[in-house]
Amino acid sequence: MRQVLPAAAVRVMAEWAKQLAGIKGVLLDISGVLYDSGEGGGVPIPGSREAVEKIKASGLKLQFCTNETEATRAKFVEKLQRLGFNISVNEVTAPAPAVCRILKERNLRPHLLVHDGLVPEFDELDKANPNCVVIGDAADNFSYKNLNEAFRVLIGMENPILLSLGRGRYYKETDGLKLDVGAYMKALEYACDIQAEVVGKPAKAFFQSALAEMGVEPHQAIMIGDDIVNDVGGAQQCGLRGLQVRTGKYRPCDEQHSHVKADGYVNNLAEAVDIIVKQLHK
Amino acid sequence: MRQVLPAAAVRVMAEWAKQLAGIKGVLLDISGVLYDSGEGGGVPIPGSREAVEKIKASGLKLQFCTNETEATRAKFVEKLQRLGFNISVNEVTAPAPAVCRILKERNLRPHLLVHDGLVPEFDELDKANPNCVVIGDAADNFSYKNLNEAFRVLIGMENPILLSLGRGRYYKETDGLKLDVGAYMKALEYACDIQAEVVGKPAKAFFQSALAEMGVEPHQAIMIGDDIVNDVGGAQQCGLRGLQVRTGKYRPCDEQHSHVKADGYVNNLAEAVDIIVKQLHK
Repeated sequence: MRQVLPAAAVRVMAEWAKQLAGIKGVLLDISGVLYDSGEGGGVPIPGSREAVEKIKASGLKLQFCTNETEATRAKFVEKLQRLGFNISVNEVTAPAPAVCRILKERNLRPHLLVHDGLVPEFDELDKANPNCVVIGDAADNFSYKNLNEAFRVLIGMENPILLSLGRGRYYKETDGLKLDVGAYMKALEYACDIQAEVVGKPAKAFFQSALAEMGVEPHQAIMIGDDIVNDVGGAQQCGLRGLQVRTGKYRPCDEQHSHVKADGYVNNLAEAVDIIVKQLHK
Repeated sequence: MRQVLPAAAVRVMAEWAKQLAGIKGVLLDISGVLYDSGEGGGVPIPGSREAVEKIKASGLKLQFCTNETEATRAKFVEKLQRLGFNISVNEVTAPAPAVCRILKERNLRPHLLVHDGLVPEFDELDKANPNCVVIGDAADNFSYKNLNEAFRVLIGMENPILLSLGRGRYYKETDGLKLDVGAYMKALEYACDIQAEVVGKPAKAFFQSALAEMGVEPHQAIMIGDDIVNDVGGAQQCGLRGLQVRTGKYRPCDEQHSHVKADGYVNNLAEAVDIIVKQLHK
């Protein structure tokens, strides 16, 4: 079913579409853009599977750029494939592989406060006698007991090191909004009087590594996400254009955000891809 | 057993003791000053029971000023009496009775994220269709599920109101350091992009209501606590003098705190009271 858009929406769309010259690559957020996560794996957002195919058929480079940390990248990709998405592991830039590289480079032994499903990503690392804490979206593992344990590791260190897999405030699952890792990161930052190092969106290095996978420069790329700060704002800080979809955790007040203004707002991924691909052929 | 202090400590003690002229009232923090909380009710800090008696015998006014929110004030006082302290309910200024007054004044219906033991304090209040969230030190009730529930109440309001019973970073129980309400307050503040209203130390209104109970002016009072920011800093902001005890959550680095300098540091409550009472008779 093709959505009929009011004239005003088409005018606004036309505005940002004019800025698309030179686009060679698309970065896609996953949760809230491709699908809504939740019990039983979640549900695809209508039109998003076809939109991914359309990008791939267009000749544009494509990389998925997610802060998802509830499962290993391999398991996460398997789930998306089961939901019908044309996606493979090497097309996904995710925080856990990125933080593992950092831990190895800096000889850090992590205490993990993450989802059970993410633990295998850290299998190769020494975790005895930890000298840092890695926090991801741990969901039910965010218990008082586990938070206290992570806190005690940090407060016992002379210079506490906290690595946070993203800094999202909340996300949407099929049964409602849920607190994301950023909220718990803030709790530990405050308790220990420290600043976490963020691995994942909106960190510049994270967008840069996704761009490097595509071989595309920032000014040649567009990020599409549902998070006005971490997707859109983060991408813009890195020199990309940023579109916000009105799906997932999107709320109308995002369009009046105090310090982030998206290059464009679209109802969903399908609409964004229609416009982008149409511009390619002009 | 009387502790023998090194000459340097005695010199430092003498410094703050000189500033004690005109003291008419003492405000005492409870946890970490009178006793260390923990399994089975906790254990008194040596000399603190006798120190309370000594203040009462001296003619000084005394009020206990606590951010304790794990039980109703009545149950908390019963526990302290069982531990051997000479203390009664009306001598204790605590956040829950204070927040109940505020809720009534402002016609607020609270969603509670507090310890089970504190819930009876809110018995008289309408809690249907909540229009604010009250957060206290909820301990094991700080589950992912409960945090999400409080978050959803807040994010669903046009102007979210979060009342926090204190803003402590952490406290010490007999089995180690634990995150305090302030850490979880920060998590909700960040997730909802709001500022909590703090009821309890270090809020000025809270110290003022404790002083009013004693009928003593701020410059005539001294606060003794183990928390450099919430006890000492909060009291000083309100015009009281503030002493930090080296018990409870005290850590040596507190003496080099970036923006709070106590009027004096003492090894424990017994030492503080010895010096204060001695000065009275000069």
